Amino acid sequence: MAVRTLDVREDILGANDVLAENLRSRFEKSGVFVMNLMSSPGAGKTSLILRIIESLSSKVKIGVIEGDIASDVDAQKVEKANVAVIQINTRGACHLDANMILGASQALGIDGRGLLIIENVGNLVCPAEFKLGEDVKVMILSVPEGHDKPLKYPLMFTESNALVLNKMDLLAYTDFDMELFTSTVLAMNPQIKIFPISAKTGEGIETFSRWLEERIREKGMPSEA
Amino acid sequence: MAVRTLDVREDILGANDVLAENLRSRFEKSGVFVMNLMSSPGAGKTSLILRIIESLSSKVKIGVIEGDIASDVDAQKVEKANVAVIQINTRGACHLDANMILGASQALGIDGRGLLIIENVGNLVCPAEFKLGEDVKVMILSVPEGHDKPLKYPLMFTESNALVLNKMDLLAYTDFDMELFTSTVLAMNPQIKIFPISAKTGEGIETFSRWLEERIREKGMPSEA
Repeated sequence: MAVRTLDVREDILGANDVLAENLRSRFEKSGVFVMNLMSSPGAGKTSLILRIIESLSSKVKIGVIEGDIASDVDAQKVEKANVAVIQINTRGACHLDANMILGASQALGIDGRGLLIIENVGNLVCPAEFKLGEDVKVMILSVPEGHDKPLKYPLMFTESNALVLNKMDLLAYTDFDMELFTSTVLAMNPQIKIFPISAKTGEGIETFSRWLEERIREKGMPSEA
Repeated sequence: MAVRTLDVREDILGANDVLAENLRSRFEKSGVFVMNLMSSPGAGKTSLILRIIESLSSKVKIGVIEGDIASDVDAQKVEKANVAVIQINTRGACHLDANMILGASQALGIDGRGLLIIENVGNLVCPAEFKLGEDVKVMILSVPEGHDKPLKYPLMFTESNALVLNKMDLLAYTDFDMELFTSTVLAMNPQIKIFPISAKTGEGIETFSRWLEERIREKGMPSEA
């Protein structure tokens, strides 16, 4: 008798895809542009969000969903910037999924807001597999993590629309090879936009913010003052 | 009729625990001391392994299992240090499990070697849940990741026997709060040993290597020259 194998993984991803598509329509209808922000722990997701708020909050309404396994450290930081924020604690799960975002976006009352930023769980692996109904996937790599990461965590690099290379202020103290890094990433994903920045010094933030603003405009979002 | 719910997650972890216990007995019988090394991508796992090889390979035989989603970049680095090494490619899976280690340790022919180092997939979340039959769990955090990580990724910090704090050479260029970090970690896990090091400059390596050597000796391993 043949052994039956159940691919639980594919099943989970399939169910998530359906829900994500549903979420995407909801966001579309209510005029919300969604950015899914992913990186390793400590690469600078929250710092980038705070910089985006500084840069764009006079032009577009912003809401933030914070995803963490535990704690609300990040949500507290974002709340101080006077932006609507909600914290998801995944209690062990290594990524956000569409179902979590459905609940959180309803709780946040995000309708009519221009930009919803979702800060995913700090993890360069699992979040790349789970769609959240987003318009753009943005990943951060930080310089101290090293230029060899694309080959080791390929899905994140091939799935993302933009790659923010953070902590450029530490470049001089590391052996990060910018040319090798850029050529490796572009060979894997020729469409990806690469933005070298320092969330600490502010270097490169305006260029990234302008790119994001253009994506929001392209979608025909109401730009509010 | 009541709905039946299948907790696939608990099931997977339970099956892994059984296999890990079996692995542990095998390693014990064949005289292998096993270190499971975990961290985020780019925190310095491979660099620490190269430093351990420098420091201990004259005293104890060393074998290395490299875990990555894709590529054999790390295995190539370790091979240059003249140590038996085998690469596991998880093809998407975000952690190693006991079954992978069973296969890899057999392929490596690790019997009679003193120290087996397992470099887990770069991920501060999932690897903490999967036992690999190891004697010690060692985690690395690197200074640029920030002092707030223990609250956000608690399981890794509570599960580990030792915490290597790497990239101390970058401390002066960051706002990493050493005192706050240490007190947070010790409040979560009073037994954990913290080792500030720089794999780049060599700072702190000897202290960590001595700790590891003592653990190996305690277990009554044959120390070979």
